[in-house]
Amino acid sequence: MTGLELRQRVWELLDVSEDQQSGVAEWDWVDVSLLVLILLNVLAVILETVRSLQLRFSTVFWAFEIFSVAVFSVEYAARIWSCTADPRYRQPIVGRLRYVSSFLGVVDFLAILPFYITLALPASAIDLRILRVLRLLRFARVLKLGRYSDSIGRMKRVIAARRGDLGVALALVVVMLILASSAIYIIEVESQPEVFTSIPAAMWWGISALTTVGYGDMAPVTPLGKFLGGIIQLLGIAIFALPAGIIAAGYEEEIRRGREDKGICSSCGRPFGPESEPGQCTDSQ
Amino acid sequence: MTGLELRQRVWELLDVSEDQQSGVAEWDWVDVSLLVLILLNVLAVILETVRSLQLRFSTVFWAFEIFSVAVFSVEYAARIWSCTADPRYRQPIVGRLRYVSSFLGVVDFLAILPFYITLALPASAIDLRILRVLRLLRFARVLKLGRYSDSIGRMKRVIAARRGDLGVALALVVVMLILASSAIYIIEVESQPEVFTSIPAAMWWGISALTTVGYGDMAPVTPLGKFLGGIIQLLGIAIFALPAGIIAAGYEEEIRRGREDKGICSSCGRPFGPESEPGQCTDSQ
Amino acid sequence: MTGLELRQRVWELLDVSEDQQSGVAEWDWVDVSLLVLILLNVLAVILETVRSLQLRFSTVFWAFEIFSVAVFSVEYAARIWSCTADPRYRQPIVGRLRYVSSFLGVVDFLAILPFYITLALPASAIDLRILRVLRLLRFARVLKLGRYSDSIGRMKRVIAARRGDLGVALALVVVMLILASSAIYIIEVESQPEVFTSIPAAMWWGISALTTVGYGDMAPVTPLGKFLGGIIQLLGIAIFALPAGIIAAGYEEEIRRGREDKGICSSCGRPFGPESEPGQCTDSQ
Amino acid sequence: MTGLELRQRVWELLDVSEDQQSGVAEWDWVDVSLLVLILLNVLAVILETVRSLQLRFSTVFWAFEIFSVAVFSVEYAARIWSCTADPRYRQPIVGRLRYVSSFLGVVDFLAILPFYITLALPASAIDLRILRVLRLLRFARVLKLGRYSDSIGRMKRVIAARRGDLGVALALVVVMLILASSAIYIIEVESQPEVFTSIPAAMWWGISALTTVGYGDMAPVTPLGKFLGGIIQLLGIAIFALPAGIIAAGYEEEIRRGREDKGICSSCGRPFGPESEPGQCTDSQ
Repeated sequence: MTGLELRQRVWELLDVSEDQQSGVAEWDWVDVSLLVLILLNVLAVILETVRSLQLRFSTVFWAFEIFSVAVFSVEYAARIWSCTADPRYRQPIVGRLRYVSSFLGVVDFLAILPFYITLALPASAIDLRILRVLRLLRFARVLKLGRYSDSIGRMKRVIAARRGDLGVALALVVVMLILASSAIYIIEVESQPEVFTSIPAAMWWGISALTTVGYGDMAPVTPLGKFLGGIIQLLGIAIFALPAGIIAAGYEEEIRRGREDKGICSSCGRPFGPESEPGQCTDSQ
Repeated sequence: MTGLELRQRVWELLDVSEDQQSGVAEWDWVDVSLLVLILLNVLAVILETVRSLQLRFSTVFWAFEIFSVAVFSVEYAARIWSCTADPRYRQPIVGRLRYVSSFLGVVDFLAILPFYITLALPASAIDLRILRVLRLLRFARVLKLGRYSDSIGRMKRVIAARRGDLGVALALVVVMLILASSAIYIIEVESQPEVFTSIPAAMWWGISALTTVGYGDMAPVTPLGKFLGGIIQLLGIAIFALPAGIIAAGYEEEIRRGREDKGICSSCGRPFGPESEPGQCTDSQ
Repeated sequence: MTGLELRQRVWELLDVSEDQQSGVAEWDWVDVSLLVLILLNVLAVILETVRSLQLRFSTVFWAFEIFSVAVFSVEYAARIWSCTADPRYRQPIVGRLRYVSSFLGVVDFLAILPFYITLALPASAIDLRILRVLRLLRFARVLKLGRYSDSIGRMKRVIAARRGDLGVALALVVVMLILASSAIYIIEVESQPEVFTSIPAAMWWGISALTTVGYGDMAPVTPLGKFLGGIIQLLGIAIFALPAGIIAAGYEEEIRRGREDKGICSSCGRPFGPESEPGQCTDSQ
Repeated sequence: MTGLELRQRVWELLDVSEDQQSGVAEWDWVDVSLLVLILLNVLAVILETVRSLQLRFSTVFWAFEIFSVAVFSVEYAARIWSCTADPRYRQPIVGRLRYVSSFLGVVDFLAILPFYITLALPASAIDLRILRVLRLLRFARVLKLGRYSDSIGRMKRVIAARRGDLGVALALVVVMLILASSAIYIIEVESQPEVFTSIPAAMWWGISALTTVGYGDMAPVTPLGKFLGGIIQLLGIAIFALPAGIIAAGYEEEIRRGREDKGICSSCGRPFGPESEPGQCTDSQ
């Protein structure tokens, strides 16, 4: 049984498991060190793009990348080998295939693949070497840890509950973007045809105006265009106000529900008495 | 009676009717294909403005436009012919006239009209050919479908309920825009008369500052102008905060009312007891 | 007594009086026409600054200004003469002085004064002629009408109730502006001394960054400056989120209080029963 | 005992003490004059950086700085001498050391230190003279007074209560910033390698896009880059909506709790009856 026990142990080491009753994450040194390694990789990928650093520390970056990919590869193999210890991936073949094709399984694979590909390529294949940025995908593992955070859970619930309203707000943005950009294009194409070359080009102005970014690389010059542009920018405010309002109401509701679950009365902020029957409220009998 | 039945059938096919009791939209293949055709037209109108695509696929765009307008024309005719099947447009002549002059009736007409006009014109009449963009008007039919969405309904109710407050916020923007632009104009016209040429011109800066877009094509340069400009930009924040707050309160209210309609107590989140009389709340008897 | 009656009548004609019991504004043709004249003056002042319009319609603008100032002057005189009909300005001399020194009294005077001054001046005195823009001050009379709007009243109450919180948010902006601008100045003055010439100059960048306007006429170039600039811009978000949140909570509270005043229970949305004693709520007896 | 009494008196003069029962700040002329002196120093530091003013009033600035630092030095010494009158710093040596190493103790020291350093230095040491800006640190004393404001207390409680949610929103910004900047870098580095030189450089664009500042000094030019950029800017809206919504809900909750503490029913807005037992709410018995 040592084989099974070892496998079980390996899986538990690799996996940030959740304590059943308390629901608290159980960290061990392996989880922590892997987490640190991932964050260091994110940092490395970012700094590696800085020419001066790249020139000075190229060997360091290279050594660190080799080390990281080696660790990730071993981890990947170990996960595939030991995943059968997880009830979800019980069966030796089917279970392992399901794990490999799971979101994190694919992510882990894509995170190490480019390195091996680029090893086989001549150094000139710049475009492919850029793929090594895919190490950033390991970032997903960090985000995955979010499931142990109350606040992230609350945010998810709020956004899920208000999904429809937020979707409508987004749809509104898209429709406004199409109409606004088309209108500005038709108005401005005459006077500055090399700037507002097409509706898709005008959309770049439209999205900048609606999100109040305003790069200034293109702007209406005709009086009518400026008038319409001003109105579009005002409408852009609605695009901020709607989601803000929707999310505010969502958090409100979430907090209120939290009180209810704790059995606290929203009217007086005191716990309900022992006589209260779970079934119904006779507030107005 | 086959004529009447046919007409009835055609109208039902063209119209996305609403199921009486459930209020759910009843789609049929005609509605769906017309919807798809409209969205494809929106896409075509947008892409057609891209020079390179226009040159390469001009025949495709042209064929698609002819096909679309043909379908829209047939649809338009069929609607006029069959609209008498709708209780709103019962009478043969008066009813049809009322339909033709209805919002969607006019939209459908304007959407196909430019094509026939431009057919009669020489290809050089660029400005008129631009009118063919009016096909975008069919977009209104898509938006019209919004009435089957809960979230859109909620948004409409919220905005309708807070109409007054939002209107005041908008009026505030206009007043601030007029005063701010006039002030900046008076301050800046001396030092950069070619930029702040007039108050309407200054308004272009004003709206950009109040909506925090800031194109950078014009900005105050005098110390006093910059000081005032900074204050105006700060006031611009209020222009975001007010609608956001108003809409947030509106959604709250809407959610709360939703609970009430379901007969759920906001204090404890449980349904009211059977003894509750609809008429009044004896909460504090 | 005809003199007194006439005076009474004139005052009522000029003043948009409020119906005692209903509190609804009582308009008469004089109020409306004066309101229209004011709005037309606002429009005229704005358009008059447009060179092309000024050249073409200078006589029209001039005639309209003479007419307007004449009317405003007569109105001003009539108000001073008849204001004693108002209980607030009962006494012939003291009352009239109090009216003349009241906010609207001063506004009306400043609105007509520049015209008479500039009449005495040579046309070359451009800077003084600009003072004629002060006709815009009459705008205050339009805003004054806001007191008849529910929504404006609600907005005032909300802002008054949240005065302190909004003030703190504003103070926070000022403190952040001073610290951020000083820091960016110290960091950037070395590398671009002609852009970040002084802390006040840096404040122009600071306010643009905090309000997310970003003109692009000045921006940090040093890595440290960009790093700090990014953080400052992130803090700028708080400057939007705080007022929005405060105002949202304020409207909430206002709506809730409105329900209470109507004696509607926030728990079930039904009016309280007849037995309810105004004094207290025995919700949890 | 005169020594002790004097020390006690000095400490009370220097310290804006809080009245025990009322909790209101007790100002005396020393506190006020020190406060004014600090604010004047902030103003001086800001204006001193303006070349023209510096040249004209250099002696005034210099005299004022000497005077201020002298006063601050005396104050600093007096505080160290008299701090033992404060129960927190009772013991002569340990207490004084604890005071010196307290936040305000360090601030006060850093605020006067640079002056003495720069006195010893040649006037050419520009970079060190800039340290004299550290007088701004005294600003902390003004902010410290915030603890006497209800609104600031409320803001602190709201932010503290929503700490987690706001932290998640901030984390979301950072993650989005890293991913967005990396993506834009990979897309744009080919077409404009001198603008998007590295991921850190792209982050300057990223933060400007996410905070909707948009300087325009760098922007995507490739169609794919503009498409992604547009989506990133839309996501930037969420970065405003989330904190605004969270803070709105936080203020709501704070206001609601305030009502409860006053024993006012949220349902009917009336105080609870005398029979109400503090322990529990029998709302739904």
